[in-house]
Amino acid sequence: MYRTHTCGELRLEQQGIETTLAGWVQRKRELGGMTFIDLRDRYGITQLVFDENSPAEIKENLKKLGREYVIQVNGLVRERSSKNINIPTGEIEIDVKKLTVLSPSAVPPFTIEDESDGGDDIRMKYRYLDLRRNPVRDTLVLRSKMAHEVRSYLNAREFIETETPVLMKSTPEGARDFIVPSRLNPGEFYALPQSPQIFKQLLMVAGFDRYYQIVKCFRDEDLRADRQPEFTQIDCEMSFVEQEDVLATFEGLTKHLFKTLKNTEVGDFPRMPYREAMEDYGSDKPDTRFEMKIKNLTELAKGKDFKIFDEADFIGGICAKGCSEYTRKQLDELTNWVKRPQIGAKGLVYVKFNTDGSVKSSVDKFYCEDDLKAWGTSFGAEQGDLILILSGDKSHTLNALGELRLEMGNRLGLRDKNIFNPLWVVDFPLLEWDSESKRFYAMHHPFTSPKPEDIPLLETNPEQVRANAYDLVINGVEIGGGSVRIFNSELQSCMFDLLGFTKEEAQAQFGFLMSAFKFGAPPHAGIAFGFDRLVSMFAGLDSIRDTIAFPKNNSGRDVMNDAPSPVAEGQLKELRIKLDLNDR
Amino acid sequence: MYRTHTCGELRLEQQGIETTLAGWVQRKRELGGMTFIDLRDRYGITQLVFDENSPAEIKENLKKLGREYVIQVNGLVRERSSKNINIPTGEIEIDVKKLTVLSPSAVPPFTIEDESDGGDDIRMKYRYLDLRRNPVRDTLVLRSKMAHEVRSYLNAREFIETETPVLMKSTPEGARDFIVPSRLNPGEFYALPQSPQIFKQLLMVAGFDRYYQIVKCFRDEDLRADRQPEFTQIDCEMSFVEQEDVLATFEGLTKHLFKTLKNTEVGDFPRMPYREAMEDYGSDKPDTRFEMKIKNLTELAKGKDFKIFDEADFIGGICAKGCSEYTRKQLDELTNWVKRPQIGAKGLVYVKFNTDGSVKSSVDKFYCEDDLKAWGTSFGAEQGDLILILSGDKSHTLNALGELRLEMGNRLGLRDKNIFNPLWVVDFPLLEWDSESKRFYAMHHPFTSPKPEDIPLLETNPEQVRANAYDLVINGVEIGGGSVRIFNSELQSCMFDLLGFTKEEAQAQFGFLMSAFKFGAPPHAGIAFGFDRLVSMFAGLDSIRDTIAFPKNNSGRDVMNDAPSPVAEGQLKELRIKLDLNDR
Repeated sequence: MYRTHTCGELRLEQQGIETTLAGWVQRKRELGGMTFIDLRDRYGITQLVFDENSPAEIKENLKKLGREYVIQVNGLVRERSSKNINIPTGEIEIDVKKLTVLSPSAVPPFTIEDESDGGDDIRMKYRYLDLRRNPVRDTLVLRSKMAHEVRSYLNAREFIETETPVLMKSTPEGARDFIVPSRLNPGEFYALPQSPQIFKQLLMVAGFDRYYQIVKCFRDEDLRADRQPEFTQIDCEMSFVEQEDVLATFEGLTKHLFKTLKNTEVGDFPRMPYREAMEDYGSDKPDTRFEMKIKNLTELAKGKDFKIFDEADFIGGICAKGCSEYTRKQLDELTNWVKRPQIGAKGLVYVKFNTDGSVKSSVDKFYCEDDLKAWGTSFGAEQGDLILILSGDKSHTLNALGELRLEMGNRLGLRDKNIFNPLWVVDFPLLEWDSESKRFYAMHHPFTSPKPEDIPLLETNPEQVRANAYDLVINGVEIGGGSVRIFNSELQSCMFDLLGFTKEEAQAQFGFLMSAFKFGAPPHAGIAFGFDRLVSMFAGLDSIRDTIAFPKNNSGRDVMNDAPSPVAEGQLKELRIKLDLNDR
Repeated sequence: MYRTHTCGELRLEQQGIETTLAGWVQRKRELGGMTFIDLRDRYGITQLVFDENSPAEIKENLKKLGREYVIQVNGLVRERSSKNINIPTGEIEIDVKKLTVLSPSAVPPFTIEDESDGGDDIRMKYRYLDLRRNPVRDTLVLRSKMAHEVRSYLNAREFIETETPVLMKSTPEGARDFIVPSRLNPGEFYALPQSPQIFKQLLMVAGFDRYYQIVKCFRDEDLRADRQPEFTQIDCEMSFVEQEDVLATFEGLTKHLFKTLKNTEVGDFPRMPYREAMEDYGSDKPDTRFEMKIKNLTELAKGKDFKIFDEADFIGGICAKGCSEYTRKQLDELTNWVKRPQIGAKGLVYVKFNTDGSVKSSVDKFYCEDDLKAWGTSFGAEQGDLILILSGDKSHTLNALGELRLEMGNRLGLRDKNIFNPLWVVDFPLLEWDSESKRFYAMHHPFTSPKPEDIPLLETNPEQVRANAYDLVINGVEIGGGSVRIFNSELQSCMFDLLGFTKEEAQAQFGFLMSAFKFGAPPHAGIAFGFDRLVSMFAGLDSIRDTIAFPKNNSGRDVMNDAPSPVAEGQLKELRIKLDLNDR
């Protein structure tokens, strides 16, 4: 070993002992002939002292040292005269007798401090330096700990961690697959898994009873802000269970993680039907850290000759407490905000319940004070509150109100990162109609079981059928989701019909699962958590990027090692493919 | 829940309680109007009894039941009249009051028993049924437990489990990469990792200090008997350590696994230099469960006009205890065995030390009894022993003798699967000369550090330079290997020179690692264990295939779901590639 102790280990009790330390030069300063160095490793920082009388050789070496040099020192632990109470080793220092330079360092392109002066691009290019910074490394240590806690919890409950193939079969359903040409099978391709869904269901058919895996998944999508082409899931499946069993097990897991990693007790998770989430929060992943629920004003607000409302399918609003003093400028800003294409509202109506008791709105022409007060009553609005109203087609308006609610929550400081509000959203619709392709899509996936009591509706009103599907939502973020699965091959065939698969398509894509179901499939259900998102939430980050050691940028590039990259012609030849760059 | 207990849970103490069980019909038999069913789940088997007076509805259902039907039953736990001491639930049975068929089953294509009647192909096609068999599932449960024990051990020692990218940069060195076309970067490709080697070294540069990962790796090789295109490694790296520290840590891990999973104490692991392994065992992965060491007879056997020996570079043999009675036929068989292309010997010379004191050899014409006895002495041969001798070029002959030694070990029953002999093979050569491409290859990989005392030989006798590289070998299987790394960019450049890389090639392939080394790289070393092989050894299997839930066959196919497969033309177009099947 190059060291007897780490840089975070020595305390006053070790005073007088000889120690060998190794690490990086965090800082070097000179003071009255003495040289002080903060020596850093993963475990902490220890102060080194070189006095005036150091041998010439050491002095020579000392001169060369700059930030991020890797050195090894030997010396005696002694009490520090001016203690640093901010660090655990702050009561001691090392009186250095021997200094070895293990590796020199060029001047780093940004400072290796908790608050770096490096921009995003440079930090990503030199990711190995960025990872030296405490906040970045702390997140990855948290990630490692979380993975271990997940495994401990599930292993104690008879779950078998089982690896499923990374080289699997391509299926056209869902997002785009990454594909891998097979050299041994020319003209054929593997696909990287978007999820191990089918394999985990096969493991249930195989009688594994309880499966989990912390597993990489892949989606070749156009990368939006917080997407990565490869991401990690906590993937689980259980046999002989019903929805309640899955919710209880994974509510337990989530509580366990909060307890062990955040020392936080979160109470029992409320259940909220999808419909309620959409109508009260305008979102299937409501942030319940604050109220500000959406109210339906459609009946109240119609029939007063305000054409926009009279023609609207839906009118709804939220009440922002204490915002009645919003200025014209602030309201214009909000109006522009809701008109952005991402939100897509046509305009914003407001009602101010002023602190002097007066009421003022942008639609005073059409509504008298009593009308507006009646609206206020439906919100429980008080003096000082501001009501913000949108109208239009119901589902878009609810979405827009949901976004506006979150924005007002931000402005009012109601979204505290240290408060965690988990809940289950349940009773999702089984199917979603896509008006473009004129077909139903599975809202969760094609193997999701309808609620038994809704099965008769499959033939008459498929859009009304609810699924035994559920999402875990924390603070407005969908952390995980899952469903009870269909385990009966006839019902599964019927689902494929509804989703517009021909018999042949269903057979080609899912034939082996359907075949498996013929040999005695147990009832089963499962769930998957987005591991990166969960780490990000626990770390208080806004993005998943820094939960990943070596992430990719928005073009799917690793700018550190410049991947992807061209490959040799011969390699493509062996794979029996060629580039096709010119035909469009 | 569909059950109150599992099929492995109930005991005599639960007599009289009401229970609900669910599982698969393992066996159904009728006896004197009663019907007995063995109900199976992952946890065990419980006997169900349906008496003559069961309601008609139950009787009707009972008639339909065949093997592998999934059923749910409710009834009372009662003492069994004829106990089955072979299973933990053998003292009780369930007096069934209610029977529900959850899933029917077609007749399975092979019997779901510990000893199946299914051949390999059919078992792989219906892998989900094969996985129902206890021995197959037990291996996967062992695998899950082993992964957890590995993690517990390493987490307790400050290792951070860190995920590295699956979509990484292609490098021409080493085995063939699987590559993945990038849609967002037309004409460019990711590669799947053959190992996370460079990333783990970057994590050391990043100051992570101790890294591990249980990780999928990929090699696009022509698949030999026991290869899989995707396999799993326990991948580790440590900073500020020397070879001894790595050996101590991972010897500790290995002992921990033997202790916790096999309840076996293995002593301290011997260290054997590579040269000794090659000369005594003809292998760099010696099976030390038995002696039968190779002896060099070159000096003793030359000069007696036996042309084959006189012209041979090397003559060596092994002594098979108690085999002097081998018949002509057995010796011919052995001769043919060593002449197979895999072994490649030209012929086999034997000397029998008969129990009557006489000596008989296939080269009696050239050697007198005293000559032969002198050979015997060098082996410590006794009456009843058989000496088997090969000759030729030294390295091939040693290899062939190594194989012959293993074969004789098998025949003599010296390779007991319940005995475990771990050892470290150390002091590997740094470089291997490839006479075909006339260049040196890194024996371990290009980042392996030479022994400091051998560095001067790099310029004069590179082939003699020993590396700080080590392999963990158990029972003749290479379980893992690793090395101390070069952490100095000048020495690394020198290695790339020796390996015949131009400056540009080295820069293009490893430039980002070399750049990283410029910012203060700590001394570091690492190791990787073949996880599939370790599981296979602990499970007493001869192949890694059954350590993998969904393995591929020798053509890299998953015969269950028929992957790889053709993909849609449009998918290739999006990726800007096309097939190129006709040009050869």
